[in-house]
Amino acid sequence: MNQILLFESDFTSHDTVSFSGRRLHHVVSVHRAGLQETLKVGLLNGKRGSGIITAFDNALLSMRVSLDEPPPPPLPLTLVLSLPRPKTLKKVLHCVTAMGVKKIYLVRSWRVEKSYFSSPLLQPENIRQELILGLEQARDTILPEVLIRPLFKPFVEDELPAIARHTRSLVAHPLAADPCPRTVEEPVTLAIGPEGGFIAYEIKTLCSAGFQPITLGERILRVEHAVPAILGKLF
Amino acid sequence: MNQILLFESDFTSHDTVSFSGRRLHHVVSVHRAGLQETLKVGLLNGKRGSGIITAFDNALLSMRVSLDEPPPPPLPLTLVLSLPRPKTLKKVLHCVTAMGVKKIYLVRSWRVEKSYFSSPLLQPENIRQELILGLEQARDTILPEVLIRPLFKPFVEDELPAIARHTRSLVAHPLAADPCPRTVEEPVTLAIGPEGGFIAYEIKTLCSAGFQPITLGERILRVEHAVPAILGKLF
Repeated sequence: MNQILLFESDFTSHDTVSFSGRRLHHVVSVHRAGLQETLKVGLLNGKRGSGIITAFDNALLSMRVSLDEPPPPPLPLTLVLSLPRPKTLKKVLHCVTAMGVKKIYLVRSWRVEKSYFSSPLLQPENIRQELILGLEQARDTILPEVLIRPLFKPFVEDELPAIARHTRSLVAHPLAADPCPRTVEEPVTLAIGPEGGFIAYEIKTLCSAGFQPITLGERILRVEHAVPAILGKLF
Repeated sequence: MNQILLFESDFTSHDTVSFSGRRLHHVVSVHRAGLQETLKVGLLNGKRGSGIITAFDNALLSMRVSLDEPPPPPLPLTLVLSLPRPKTLKKVLHCVTAMGVKKIYLVRSWRVEKSYFSSPLLQPENIRQELILGLEQARDTILPEVLIRPLFKPFVEDELPAIARHTRSLVAHPLAADPCPRTVEEPVTLAIGPEGGFIAYEIKTLCSAGFQPITLGERILRVEHAVPAILGKLF
């Protein structure tokens, strides 16, 4: 946790906050911070700054905070992710949130197991918790938007063209002829398939929606490694 | 598992193999492969090819194999990794093995918890198991070498200069002035610090050994995400 993320509900006056739970535990047992120590803080969807610990016990920590720094710029990338298994989804959400992605579509595709869509992780409160961990990691404050699309064809044919308009639209596909582009200047919409990849029909549908298949080479990576590797190449 | 990794001990004749355990279980319950089906195989530290299932039951699977394809080229990068917590180490070993790294030094640094060096994961057989999973993922066969160096100063001062000779030597450091270079042409030696980073003295020691501090920007990533992002940028 490189930053304590604050919520409007933590404020007890215009410049004082109090909180308990996970954040209190982290400050006390990981940061091992004490009275009058300064920690980096950020207000959810607001500015960043610092907080001085004014009081704490086992139940509550209070800080005087000053917030004057804008969050880091977002990454100009929209991610269209074939819903991976819950364990992988957690890792990818953390990673892309930390890297600055602000819009994530979780879509159904042929090789996605149906059961993944009924995972408790997809409850908004659980997704939000993963995003918050990513924001804390990267000292960001702007919560990404995560949208679930359980029907591939209507999503790609009817909704995706508008999402991808005026962006470079790429789909990661091990069998693609073109390598992943590097250091792009424009915004990107990036589609990532499931373990085993998109099927040929899905690639065709994505191509009809203006997507270009690109590859990382013959080494096929796990989704949670392919995503940061591609984002690293692109930006 | 995009490839079944074979060992010399699996061979029952020059072109037939039999195995049990994890690989048998994977072929039967994940690939759901049956008799006469062809799967991709590779011989540890040897060639790749295909295998036809000639017999299987709950205890043993037999294949006729043909090995005629060389493994994919390695990544020209030596990784010097400040030993992370075991859970993170597993992820990083899998990722860099799949990406083609062939030499990994695990080093002690100031912010590494002493207990990490007594983790059972550091037993050669356990490290080897993680590397094998990475090879299976990327259809590689060449086992990386993992070397443990529990003393930072003698390693960096006495051993590292020879390791890094004739390579571009980089140390990832959030406070660095220079961005991570892109699309380098020469081999690289890359040092990655622990959570919280190398301390100033360690950065100074690495700089004296010819290392250049580079940064991914103000967003600080977890080690397991920083590594594929940096490798993606470099190659």
